[in-house]
Amino acid sequence: MKKIRIGILGYGSVGSALVELIGVEHDAIAARTGLDLEVVAVAVRNITPERLAALGADVLTSDAKAVVADDEIDVVVELIGGVEPARRLILEALGSGKPVISGNKELIANVGAELFVAAQKSNVDLLFEAAVAGGIPLLRVLRESLVGERIKRMMGIVNGTTNYILTQMSENGAQYGDALAEAQQLGYAEEDPTADVEGGDAGAKAAIMATIAFGTEVFAGDVYQEGISQVTADDIASAAHMGHIIKLLAVVEEIDGEVSARVHPAMVPDTHPLASVRNSFNAVFIEGEAVGDLMLYGHGAGGNPTASAVLGDLIAASANLQRGISSGLGKLREARIRPMGECISAFCVHVTVRDRPGVLAEVAGIFGEHGVSIRSMEQAAQADIANIVFITHPSREADVHATLSELRGNSSVVEIGSVIRVIAPEV
Amino acid sequence: MKKIRIGILGYGSVGSALVELIGVEHDAIAARTGLDLEVVAVAVRNITPERLAALGADVLTSDAKAVVADDEIDVVVELIGGVEPARRLILEALGSGKPVISGNKELIANVGAELFVAAQKSNVDLLFEAAVAGGIPLLRVLRESLVGERIKRMMGIVNGTTNYILTQMSENGAQYGDALAEAQQLGYAEEDPTADVEGGDAGAKAAIMATIAFGTEVFAGDVYQEGISQVTADDIASAAHMGHIIKLLAVVEEIDGEVSARVHPAMVPDTHPLASVRNSFNAVFIEGEAVGDLMLYGHGAGGNPTASAVLGDLIAASANLQRGISSGLGKLREARIRPMGECISAFCVHVTVRDRPGVLAEVAGIFGEHGVSIRSMEQAAQADIANIVFITHPSREADVHATLSELRGNSSVVEIGSVIRVIAPEV
Repeated sequence: MKKIRIGILGYGSVGSALVELIGVEHDAIAARTGLDLEVVAVAVRNITPERLAALGADVLTSDAKAVVADDEIDVVVELIGGVEPARRLILEALGSGKPVISGNKELIANVGAELFVAAQKSNVDLLFEAAVAGGIPLLRVLRESLVGERIKRMMGIVNGTTNYILTQMSENGAQYGDALAEAQQLGYAEEDPTADVEGGDAGAKAAIMATIAFGTEVFAGDVYQEGISQVTADDIASAAHMGHIIKLLAVVEEIDGEVSARVHPAMVPDTHPLASVRNSFNAVFIEGEAVGDLMLYGHGAGGNPTASAVLGDLIAASANLQRGISSGLGKLREARIRPMGECISAFCVHVTVRDRPGVLAEVAGIFGEHGVSIRSMEQAAQADIANIVFITHPSREADVHATLSELRGNSSVVEIGSVIRVIAPEV
Repeated sequence: MKKIRIGILGYGSVGSALVELIGVEHDAIAARTGLDLEVVAVAVRNITPERLAALGADVLTSDAKAVVADDEIDVVVELIGGVEPARRLILEALGSGKPVISGNKELIANVGAELFVAAQKSNVDLLFEAAVAGGIPLLRVLRESLVGERIKRMMGIVNGTTNYILTQMSENGAQYGDALAEAQQLGYAEEDPTADVEGGDAGAKAAIMATIAFGTEVFAGDVYQEGISQVTADDIASAAHMGHIIKLLAVVEEIDGEVSARVHPAMVPDTHPLASVRNSFNAVFIEGEAVGDLMLYGHGAGGNPTASAVLGDLIAASANLQRGISSGLGKLREARIRPMGECISAFCVHVTVRDRPGVLAEVAGIFGEHGVSIRSMEQAAQADIANIVFITHPSREADVHATLSELRGNSSVVEIGSVIRVIAPEV
């Protein structure tokens, strides 16, 4: 039986769930893996009486630097969040030959490449399953089960807050503001919800998904972001009328060696597996060349699910440490990040026009001139205006924007309403 | 770059897809893993001109025994199916220090325990991801990502044929016989569909799921099996009226150290993630103590998805072989298999009674006497009879059967109709 001495940085909801989980499952893990896991240090910024009572003075410390430097510690778990001081602490731990487990998406999405090199140099693991989609075993599946698979595209519902808001809007007809307020009241959304609702959180996760799936350097800043704050109850009702539900998707794809990573709301067909992902659940839909369609679904946040993902990494890294091996990412490729204008999306476009003879042909003609082909069209006339809903075939984003720009300048067009991307139905 | 020489036994749809996949992805795999995969032998029972043209005389052979004995071969992939001669060939390969990948559920579910011991003895891998749910990365997720997780229950849609039939019945109102005939015409169902429709195929997979999730010996013969041949269009319509869809589920759970493994149709609430698994897709819903609910969804069969799962195993086993390590299951526990009568299920029971005063109280009383508590009841009277649909709270199966038995003997009861288990809604 090999004793593994663990140092944890941070003791929030995930850290405390992890300490408890290691305690409860200690014997079962030892029986299954031969590893005797022991939490020997927990570093926090503030030592409170509650934390002292829970962990004891031998374990609790306010000196994170001492934890990563301690020769008595075998593995470091970083649950502080943010780039600094997490980055410096992890570099120090890796440099001294300690594997590191992190749940920190901001860190990995911004300075991951530097950390991967440091881990490789020391031949120890840097694992971060918990950084994307919480308890869902996504990254290990990509790195191991699908290591021989050519991933074409992944589409993820990777932000529970926005999925909760959109679910409330879909199922109860709530307006965005009311659903957000409810999410805040329930603790699903922060007081300042920007990172969730404007796509920043999902964007960091998209960068990590693209990095692991395609073996390329993709950083948070490479990800196109559009949030849900402009999505209205009308948009959702109109999408439902057409057999779709609106979801905030993180989409990553590889096309001819280039990578696209983007976050935006999209109309998902009701029969698509992503459509049934409700409330704060997360899911990632994977399209592989040989394996076809896969979806992984589960809790994307929360102390226990996230601690479960950290524990899986902790056991893997400890087993590798014992064997003197590591499961590095290999050398990351530098791939061109395809600009959004060059990406291909189908769109749903609401256009209000003056209801006069020939107007439909005129408007449809503008789509055609820009190479945007129309899949379906629905028109509702009221008095002297008509509301037309176009759904396009997949088209270059730049061509769609040129179409919209010309429509805005056309005298028959009263208004361009919502413009939302549309995901193709599953066969 | 390490050359890995692969011998494949069997060249059906999976074998041929695997050979092609290794060819197409060879360079990408080499770049990512440092492994130079080469198929050096494919053993088939019948050497046909087509196979000879595809593989060449150097690779194709009819001598499977020579392949497993060949010192020039590093890894063996068994895609023959059935217990013998697969078992003998695999024992020989493992005995000579070759890792083995198998996609053979029948083999693993019947004689897996013997093979695991042989693999452990030679310190090489025996991996069989493709044996359960085809391309879905289930077994590796259980063995690695969730190795620290206490799995409480798993419910799987693991037979594509029956899911296709039930989907057609649900969505098009087809009768069982017509949907089966259509599935046979499309090649989804065999001419003799027994193994699919009576639950044998799902039962073998349930045994493997329980073995891996709970670390216990569970064999195909331990699994309770009820198929879908008795499910009627009326049952499906009635379930739909109550907000449920009928699915064939493989259920495995661990309760107080004992294991239950069973296959039966069940009413799944429309809002449950399993409800949206349509046509021939498979999915496994996992309930873990810390991670909460997870679902893994994808193609459960087909040459390419299954070959993708085999390839993931092949790369893992090859990497382990190079390092001189193996990822054994450890020692399997012997756990009591809980008999079906002791298992807990909620039931939907259709009862036709003579419509006279007091009959409802009388019938409800019979449930109560046997300790079966009623969650909901709906009654439709027509002329002098009434059709009552009871849904019970989760109850001991034996108590429900005792209730049914007494109801059958009651003079007020005209007939007991369908009796179908009900899955509780997700919160």
